[in-house]
Amino acid sequence: MAGKDKVSEAVVRRLPTYHRYLERLAQEGTTRISSQELGQRMGLTASQIRQDINCFGTLGQQGYGYNVEELRGRIAEILGLGRAYHVIVVGAGNIGRAVTNYVGFTRLDFAVEALFDVDSTRVGERVGDAEIFSTHTLPAYLTTHRVDISIIATPAEAAQGIADELMEGGVRALWNFAPVDIAAKPGCVVQNVQLTDNLLVLTYHMLNDPAEQ
Amino acid sequence: MAGKDKVSEAVVRRLPTYHRYLERLAQEGTTRISSQELGQRMGLTASQIRQDINCFGTLGQQGYGYNVEELRGRIAEILGLGRAYHVIVVGAGNIGRAVTNYVGFTRLDFAVEALFDVDSTRVGERVGDAEIFSTHTLPAYLTTHRVDISIIATPAEAAQGIADELMEGGVRALWNFAPVDIAAKPGCVVQNVQLTDNLLVLTYHMLNDPAEQ
Repeated sequence: MAGKDKVSEAVVRRLPTYHRYLERLAQEGTTRISSQELGQRMGLTASQIRQDINCFGTLGQQGYGYNVEELRGRIAEILGLGRAYHVIVVGAGNIGRAVTNYVGFTRLDFAVEALFDVDSTRVGERVGDAEIFSTHTLPAYLTTHRVDISIIATPAEAAQGIADELMEGGVRALWNFAPVDIAAKPGCVVQNVQLTDNLLVLTYHMLNDPAEQ
Repeated sequence: MAGKDKVSEAVVRRLPTYHRYLERLAQEGTTRISSQELGQRMGLTASQIRQDINCFGTLGQQGYGYNVEELRGRIAEILGLGRAYHVIVVGAGNIGRAVTNYVGFTRLDFAVEALFDVDSTRVGERVGDAEIFSTHTLPAYLTTHRVDISIIATPAEAAQGIADELMEGGVRALWNFAPVDIAAKPGCVVQNVQLTDNLLVLTYHMLNDPAEQ
């Protein structure tokens, strides 16, 4: 979309952070910011900031810094913010419901349109505005509805099978909360979340080296 | 706890993944595994596996590989798995409730014991087994209860103030879901989650380079 070369994953992972800092600056009424100042706020060097932003074309002006709103808008566009996505959730247990609520209450334009579960006692229930359907009806749903992103919140054993079914049905982006890493088919993208891994990194530091942090 | 030297953050971040793979291997009935085989499963080189594991003492035997259950148990101990932690949540909105449910339904031994919210209409409600209290009562709660980990799920503006209050009250580990990075005081540890950042990395790849994945 932006440059000719593929942007490194490290830069891609920093983009949402840039967006958050720039949004905050805009809210504070800051209209221009230098790479030095932005770097100080974000804990990066000025040169790192310039390198990162240069991946997406010419956005700053030597000696004048960046226009906060222009840079925020450009990064928002690159990240696909402001677009509406069709989202479903497979696995309507506690984690699936929690993630459905989480997504619905962030300020992003992601609304879950349907949930699917193998447990027939859950079918027909609602989570927010979305209904729970039987997982058996998922292939049929995919032929009649556009789905941009599917959240996977099944048990570990079921996750890859469901992922394959979704990708065969044309879903190109999977956000996986099952406690197992999912492999993507060509043309599809997967983010494996593993929230508990993050919690265990916290307990590791708590037990092993709190005084150094 | 383990070696004399501080273990690098990259290794620490891989430990929960090791634990998941070893748990799966043990469930499958595998009792021994070579660094080559474990590396293949995890997408790491055998030499990387050996280096990582060597950080925690002598665990494998040249030519015999690792004892799966012994290694899993050692990593579980290092990560603090199997200990019971006293956990509270500050911010009982949708995200706070979702995370409370999420934590409660993972297989980890983390149960939320109390939630705190500034909204008086929420006070007295329950999320699972835990009651919601007024945030005004948080300092008093901290003097009378042991809290190992606090989850922060407040709006961005309130997060650092609450974090400071928690750290002053003796909480040494913060798991932060507010959309702003929290700074830790000496002796305290923080993991800033930013789930929506992860979702935006997914949409970036979906829009920019799905064919290459």
